[in-house]
Amino acid sequence: MQFPSRDQVPPAASALEWHTNHLRLLDHRSLPEARVWVECRDADEVAEAIVQGVVPGAAAGVVAAYGIALAARRIGRSADWLAALKPDLTLLAGSSPASAQLGWVLGVVIDRLQRLPSSGADVPELLAQLAMDLHLSDREAARSMGQLGLQVFKRHASQSQRLLAMPGNLAGGSLRGLLELARAAHGAGLMEHLHLCADQDAGALRLARWALEQDGVPVSAQVLAAAGQLMKGDNLHWVVVGAQRVAANGDVISDLGTYALAVLAMHHGLRFMVVAPSSAFDVGLEDADEIEPEDALLQRDGRLQLDVTPAELIDVLVTERGVVERPDAGRIAELLSPLRLH
Amino acid sequence: MQFPSRDQVPPAASALEWHTNHLRLLDHRSLPEARVWVECRDADEVAEAIVQGVVPGAAAGVVAAYGIALAARRIGRSADWLAALKPDLTLLAGSSPASAQLGWVLGVVIDRLQRLPSSGADVPELLAQLAMDLHLSDREAARSMGQLGLQVFKRHASQSQRLLAMPGNLAGGSLRGLLELARAAHGAGLMEHLHLCADQDAGALRLARWALEQDGVPVSAQVLAAAGQLMKGDNLHWVVVGAQRVAANGDVISDLGTYALAVLAMHHGLRFMVVAPSSAFDVGLEDADEIEPEDALLQRDGRLQLDVTPAELIDVLVTERGVVERPDAGRIAELLSPLRLH
Repeated sequence: MQFPSRDQVPPAASALEWHTNHLRLLDHRSLPEARVWVECRDADEVAEAIVQGVVPGAAAGVVAAYGIALAARRIGRSADWLAALKPDLTLLAGSSPASAQLGWVLGVVIDRLQRLPSSGADVPELLAQLAMDLHLSDREAARSMGQLGLQVFKRHASQSQRLLAMPGNLAGGSLRGLLELARAAHGAGLMEHLHLCADQDAGALRLARWALEQDGVPVSAQVLAAAGQLMKGDNLHWVVVGAQRVAANGDVISDLGTYALAVLAMHHGLRFMVVAPSSAFDVGLEDADEIEPEDALLQRDGRLQLDVTPAELIDVLVTERGVVERPDAGRIAELLSPLRLH
Repeated sequence: MQFPSRDQVPPAASALEWHTNHLRLLDHRSLPEARVWVECRDADEVAEAIVQGVVPGAAAGVVAAYGIALAARRIGRSADWLAALKPDLTLLAGSSPASAQLGWVLGVVIDRLQRLPSSGADVPELLAQLAMDLHLSDREAARSMGQLGLQVFKRHASQSQRLLAMPGNLAGGSLRGLLELARAAHGAGLMEHLHLCADQDAGALRLARWALEQDGVPVSAQVLAAAGQLMKGDNLHWVVVGAQRVAANGDVISDLGTYALAVLAMHHGLRFMVVAPSSAFDVGLEDADEIEPEDALLQRDGRLQLDVTPAELIDVLVTERGVVERPDAGRIAELLSPLRLH
């Protein structure tokens, strides 16, 4: 069994530990007061941890990939792995239906199961390796977003910046990108203060606050309702949010309240940055701004949980592949062009 | 002992019942699921009910006045009522420090205690009568605000309106004004739908929702973060909020999130109405827009809990004395002029 090496996993940021036959998850519900770990030994326990909010929805994807690896280890041998794992795949897919990254990760897992060598493969080991690969590539994407976002900050200002960010509970990938951006800006001496906002008592906010405090980033937690007054009175420079889905024209579907932050940022002359991995781009969705509140794309469990920020309100989109300033369909198509693949 | 007569207290809206020797309060924490009453027999129990959120801060003023009446009844006789009641006055004043109306009501009580006849007065009875007077005048002010607000709706539109309102937890007086406005507009066939917003799980929102549902007003509860998406997609006409304090120039200090609603309303071309009793006007405060988030005027218990909406963003201020459109210092001075007193 191969482990991510220690230098690949910054200790303070590690909220997930993979061991040969179990997964340890830092319980975000207890942060920042306590550091409680939850141990999962099969897919059921992993799904339950996601459902219970041990990890925020934004982190459910990688966690679910490890859950499938645990399930395969329990099964041991099978002539039809896809059929054997189907109950676990279904269970995990339903554990955080709002997490776009979760769906994407399980799609990758299924794709791998459909392309297994005809015989001789150690499938539990293959799936564990796949989970670790996804985990590392997720972390690498976050680092790239952090570095590219930092370059944007540097282009726009030389002095230390005051930021307001919403670490979306549902915006998979964005959360870690935002953490890396905050660390990078702090390391470069460009982070004077970071206000973290969330509407409710969000796991993502607690994780972000805890992780950044470990690294000495000057950070405070705020209710989302305070954003207006902070923008008016606190000399902010940037507002940074995540995305759950980005339309072909740059409209962004994200955690509820993101759109209000964008309008407020424009009103106060602040720059508005969206941090999102390229996997969040949905080129099949031409634009998103006409979506009604009743649309299933914005609802979870019959409640409005996401909103749409039109591309006109976005100054910069930061992905691991590159940055798009003043996003529109042409610039986004260029970013996503295969020629620009790593 | 005199009771408010039944026709003065619409049954569905009555969240407070005064009896000779106790006060019954509808517990807003249990609404709308259940209708639980809390009985208070002295000022301690009344203060505790306010502290525990049995009533929202916005309703603490009238409740505290009854609390003083209960305290006086327990004391029975005294040569120095002000001194005898001082512990109760202090206790009640501290029960909801953010409630401006509470401070105002206790000021009225103290003023009355300082002007007692030299002998022969039944002070417990006097104080009970004062509490009932304050209660009724609060209700009358709310009815006036409701009727005056309705006239504004009628002036601006003939068709049924879709509203978004924030029944502020701290905006004393405004809450009942907003309820009366919603009832009046519904009665006049001018209320198509009312979205009630609150940042947290606010008692005021639960009270408002429950009271309006009793009256058949088409109402739904929303998290504050949904306001942007609702304004964009739901064909709203008006945004209505309360105020805890109104500066001489019309700047409004209100529950956190009000300012963001005002910016969003402007961005979407919606009209923005503030409902506030004239007792909320603080002519000593010239303007409020330069107040920093750290200012004690906006903080409670060391946390930002109020924000400032500049007068420029307000289309209409509705008080029980009259309406000010596009408020400024001159128009507000005219409204508050003694010549316009009832």
